[in-house]
Amino acid sequence: MAAGNYLRHMPFKPVTAEVIEALRACLVQGELLTTAEHTSHYGHDETEDLNHPPEVVVRPRTTAEVARVVKVCAEYKIPITPIGGRTGLSGGALCVHGGVGLALDKMNAIENIDELNQQVTVQPGVITQNLMDAVAEKGMYYAPDPSSKGSCTIGGNLAENAGGPRAVKYGVTRDFVLNLEVVLPNGEVIWTGANTLKNSTGYDLTRLIVGSEGTLGVITKAVLRLVPKPTASRLMLVPFNSETQACEAVSAVFRAGITPSALEFMERDAIDFTLKHVPGINLVVPPEVKAHLLVEVDGQHDDALMRDCETILGVMEAHGCGEVLFAESSAEKDALWKMRRNVPVAVKAHTVYKEEDTVVPRYALPKLLAGVKAIGKEYGFRTICYGHAGDGNLHINIIREGLSDAFWNDELPKAIRKIFELTVSLGGTLSGEHGIGLVQRSYMDIAFSEQQLAVMRGIKDLFDPQGIMNPGKVL
Amino acid sequence: MAAGNYLRHMPFKPVTAEVIEALRACLVQGELLTTAEHTSHYGHDETEDLNHPPEVVVRPRTTAEVARVVKVCAEYKIPITPIGGRTGLSGGALCVHGGVGLALDKMNAIENIDELNQQVTVQPGVITQNLMDAVAEKGMYYAPDPSSKGSCTIGGNLAENAGGPRAVKYGVTRDFVLNLEVVLPNGEVIWTGANTLKNSTGYDLTRLIVGSEGTLGVITKAVLRLVPKPTASRLMLVPFNSETQACEAVSAVFRAGITPSALEFMERDAIDFTLKHVPGINLVVPPEVKAHLLVEVDGQHDDALMRDCETILGVMEAHGCGEVLFAESSAEKDALWKMRRNVPVAVKAHTVYKEEDTVVPRYALPKLLAGVKAIGKEYGFRTICYGHAGDGNLHINIIREGLSDAFWNDELPKAIRKIFELTVSLGGTLSGEHGIGLVQRSYMDIAFSEQQLAVMRGIKDLFDPQGIMNPGKVL
Repeated sequence: MAAGNYLRHMPFKPVTAEVIEALRACLVQGELLTTAEHTSHYGHDETEDLNHPPEVVVRPRTTAEVARVVKVCAEYKIPITPIGGRTGLSGGALCVHGGVGLALDKMNAIENIDELNQQVTVQPGVITQNLMDAVAEKGMYYAPDPSSKGSCTIGGNLAENAGGPRAVKYGVTRDFVLNLEVVLPNGEVIWTGANTLKNSTGYDLTRLIVGSEGTLGVITKAVLRLVPKPTASRLMLVPFNSETQACEAVSAVFRAGITPSALEFMERDAIDFTLKHVPGINLVVPPEVKAHLLVEVDGQHDDALMRDCETILGVMEAHGCGEVLFAESSAEKDALWKMRRNVPVAVKAHTVYKEEDTVVPRYALPKLLAGVKAIGKEYGFRTICYGHAGDGNLHINIIREGLSDAFWNDELPKAIRKIFELTVSLGGTLSGEHGIGLVQRSYMDIAFSEQQLAVMRGIKDLFDPQGIMNPGKVL
Repeated sequence: MAAGNYLRHMPFKPVTAEVIEALRACLVQGELLTTAEHTSHYGHDETEDLNHPPEVVVRPRTTAEVARVVKVCAEYKIPITPIGGRTGLSGGALCVHGGVGLALDKMNAIENIDELNQQVTVQPGVITQNLMDAVAEKGMYYAPDPSSKGSCTIGGNLAENAGGPRAVKYGVTRDFVLNLEVVLPNGEVIWTGANTLKNSTGYDLTRLIVGSEGTLGVITKAVLRLVPKPTASRLMLVPFNSETQACEAVSAVFRAGITPSALEFMERDAIDFTLKHVPGINLVVPPEVKAHLLVEVDGQHDDALMRDCETILGVMEAHGCGEVLFAESSAEKDALWKMRRNVPVAVKAHTVYKEEDTVVPRYALPKLLAGVKAIGKEYGFRTICYGHAGDGNLHINIIREGLSDAFWNDELPKAIRKIFELTVSLGGTLSGEHGIGLVQRSYMDIAFSEQQLAVMRGIKDLFDPQGIMNPGKVL
């Protein structure tokens, strides 16, 4: 394996007046922004309290503009960082080497909803919820629903291979992609595949680009598959007096033959935080409750779903659950989902925090949770844990509260390393749906051997020999 | 994009007595075969009447043996071709440059069925049906079911990204893979991912290997996900007096909110061939019938499936179907599936044929079918068409019957080129589930631009700079 010298391209060149002029000449409909207000705005996402502004923001309107901008960056050796909805949790869109912030928020057209083939062609800046709403109007369903769906974009979802609660039944963003238009780091434009449900024609460039976090090229268009919209759903909130019992029930649901459309875990603190910080949710949690599962089933036949719920209830009771709350109306469903989706919002309102996105085989979840708590106790920090238990995907919010700078910057990384070592020892890996981006990058050696990393670096070098495309991320 | 000089490694070295000795020294439990009987046996698959024997057959028993064999081949610059169940239809396992035929049929253990996590770890030589049966005993389901499931292997399924009738609901082989152990062309062993349902950690090496047809490395182990086994299914055979109406009904089924577990198309000749060549199937097809759809739904609730069948029936009637045959028993279901699965067997029993594996967005199927028939008429050959209509995947069997060598070898490739040009013009591509292998390789320029091919060649060069791994395939 030709490893390549991944860092040979450093340092990059600064964005001079000449570069600005060359970039401006690339744009017909797009705009270029240089004020501190603008660069600062595009310099942060939802990752901790980090801010890494670009030297200049370019907001193209067309693929041709993107291609020209990338060519100029390649010519002048300027770093270029694609920026979507800036809701990322791993710092993938932060311009850590300055350069050009390529904001794709103006490329936000839903170009074609193809009802006959149940496909949709979108530009990368389309907000995920807008896509879901547009296709739902025509009876179709785009299932991947990251918690930030109201503000994240499809381009960002593709770059990070975003998941969400419904991935457990429907799959993640990757599983809905048929074909991508990509501007390569040399400015060439390619499509990665074909607009077909099956494809065994050449190497799978589509899925190589998905999840590559903007380091191999800029996604400028996506063809996504759609599925029939489920017409019925049932939702229940299940309390447990033990986190372990809750986690063990998760695996048992699937063994009972049910594939729920969501199976979410929230530990006690996650709900308490949310009830305190998010208005309008009425729920009284008895003091002995230590964890909740939120379980949804969906489909076309409500009576069949009711029977699935009875099966699920049997599994939950066999694992010692408390009194189950069935959502009786759309409003009650919305309230329960609001509670779940607002856990990270509530944690953020309370304190600075670091979020880890660990994922393990689902039956290993109780071991992961117990291990995380033990590591927290050993090092002296508190965590709020919740996530997509059906997928074995546990979000670990390490909350800052009164911790010192010294601890936060120097000691905590050692503890996080221990958490990831535990995760990998359980058959898991660093990130289930947030990506590696900036903040998990220094832990890649835990998940991968030198040989594996050499293959990935080789791919990076092949696509981007100058290393200008979103430098400082993933590898 | 660094294109690389893909052919710089030609020619390869012959397998000398010294190489044989070096290979023999790699094997502890495995065997090495050199007789013409053995090399000829491993020199063909199900692709037309082609035979390209290896110079020597190596049948390893362990990953360590595979790694040592690959290292020897790398050292002596000997081509190495992984061989599975030899059921391939694109010639992916044919040793077109001689060298080592790496037969993986002795690495056929199901190593671990993990019920708690609904995963299974298998060696590449496991026969697909054996895997399906083993997990079904424990209430789980491995859904991908290529027609050759009784003799094809998981390693081959992974290499070609095999599909099958149930892909329309459950996905193809790619969608069931969590993690792969791969021996790289330099003899290094890596895992591609993690044993998790979600993974956004680094580049997706797993899906880069799936479908790469043994050109990037040798798959020596696979961790596959499983789903709950459906407990009920319903099957119906629907006749139409027009192929176009049948194809149009396919798209309408999904628009009615149904995702069938199979939606197969057979034109009149496909059924007539099968009824003639396969004993024990009782079906009288009225003369006016031009095509059939075979539609299956599955799930956990039979009453819900019955309602789905009513919806499907409504759609079919709206598209002018004839009298629908509902399978009333397991035996009737088996007979209908036997009929469908035996179409290629029946065609093969009748004549030499070439099989194309075109795939288009599903609503384009009638246009593809009509176009194929027109091209056949123009050039003077007959086709039997059938396939996975729900996925837009049409198998085109071009039957030899009395056609001359001159036509078959010189004229027909021009017609096939026209078929692929039509396919691509409809938004489709060359292969849905058989792979490119040897026989579709010369048509890759129709599906891909020079830039796309340069990316793929670059990936090949990165993994396999000497070009020893399954040379002469895909690119």
